[in-house]
Amino acid sequence: MLSVIILGTGNVATHLISAFSKAKNVELKQVYGRNESALKSIDNRISTTSTLCNLATADVYIIAISDDAISEFSSQLPLKNKIVVHTSGSISLQSLQNLGNKGVFYPLQTFSKNHKVNFNEIPICIEAENRNDFSLLKKLANSISDKVYPIDSSQRKYLHVSAVFTNNFVNQLYKIGNDICNQNDIPFEVLQPLILESAKKIATNNPTDIQTGPAYRDDQKTISNHLELLSGDEKKIYKLLTESIQKTHGKKL
Amino acid sequence: MLSVIILGTGNVATHLISAFSKAKNVELKQVYGRNESALKSIDNRISTTSTLCNLATADVYIIAISDDAISEFSSQLPLKNKIVVHTSGSISLQSLQNLGNKGVFYPLQTFSKNHKVNFNEIPICIEAENRNDFSLLKKLANSISDKVYPIDSSQRKYLHVSAVFTNNFVNQLYKIGNDICNQNDIPFEVLQPLILESAKKIATNNPTDIQTGPAYRDDQKTISNHLELLSGDEKKIYKLLTESIQKTHGKKL
Repeated sequence: MLSVIILGTGNVATHLISAFSKAKNVELKQVYGRNESALKSIDNRISTTSTLCNLATADVYIIAISDDAISEFSSQLPLKNKIVVHTSGSISLQSLQNLGNKGVFYPLQTFSKNHKVNFNEIPICIEAENRNDFSLLKKLANSISDKVYPIDSSQRKYLHVSAVFTNNFVNQLYKIGNDICNQNDIPFEVLQPLILESAKKIATNNPTDIQTGPAYRDDQKTISNHLELLSGDEKKIYKLLTESIQKTHGKKL
Repeated sequence: MLSVIILGTGNVATHLISAFSKAKNVELKQVYGRNESALKSIDNRISTTSTLCNLATADVYIIAISDDAISEFSSQLPLKNKIVVHTSGSISLQSLQNLGNKGVFYPLQTFSKNHKVNFNEIPICIEAENRNDFSLLKKLANSISDKVYPIDSSQRKYLHVSAVFTNNFVNQLYKIGNDICNQNDIPFEVLQPLILESAKKIATNNPTDIQTGPAYRDDQKTISNHLELLSGDEKKIYKLLTESIQKTHGKKL
């Protein structure tokens, strides 16, 4: 049976602890956290430690701490001939400073501590230095998710940028839509079915093929009416994204 | 029993015809279309005409044609003392030029002709000139949807802008994410669970409260790494939306 140790007690760590606790064929051997009070909130059937010297032996060590701390923390690990992975979308494999093998185990989802997730649906992007480590990480990832992808450090940088566009920036557009509704006594829930439908559509359609709206139609009258209603950053964003859509669909204009 | 006539044979008209055909307590009395071949594709149990003089009598007339044509078309209707509504998000009630009463019956969803929708989940925004007409439209809307909202012409302008941000612009960000993935041999499906989760979250959360990512954390290192990977419009959009997120969450920086 594969054994794993989680190093960290934050959002990602908490969700991994919960997922591995339930996984068949994997033993969650220990959780390390420097913060003892955080360790106390972990299910007491799971062994914990706040001292690196007391780390148990396991097949894989997963560092799930903030990006900035990964490199320095990994250099302190008293482990040899062991594979250590991090869970970050924006840190390279080579940033790990442990003495043994390195890898990445990146679950691509936004995690909130109190928001339950179905790990089975969460893509896990893995990377290793050799085939043996890769198949070890694949086995580990498959124990908690059906969606496991080989993504190397160079691809992962681009995947992370892409996630910023499709998640963080999209959420900021939701925020702007919500603000405009609030300012005009319109319940934002009116827009929610549309928002959900747009997100669902791209599972089976190329986003380029399903674009609609005034920018796509080059409907200058509506565009200038909309610009009159906007100001500041909202106006700048409206202009720039309208231009971007028009360039994409230029041939159809 | 309420009776209704649909004027138009495009996307919105097709979906309304299908919804009213199945609705209880509503009789879809006739469909008008100037294009006879489009009329032929309509279920032959429904009466159709391509001649305005042959319009039947009904309680409500719904114009579902392109925005630009609504005003001119409504002036040609040989109807008196009848309520005529349009289905557009960006045209005011007063743009209607019919002789009788005016109203709006705006289903807020993106419609593709071959993509089935569950009309029951689609918000319908209605507006009328008086209480009687309003309750007539409300009854009509409720016959096909559980989600009916009173939205006046001034609010509708803002609702439409908001829909452009949360639907068209969001789709363009999906397109950019898809492009970045394609250029780096990353399957776009890796991002789809994240995208769907983000869209679902705002049904129960204020978008401002659930923002994450480098801009939110003011993680300058990741932001500058990302900017190095981007160029052209993608870089401009990245900068502008990063600034927008930072301004929103300025107090937390």
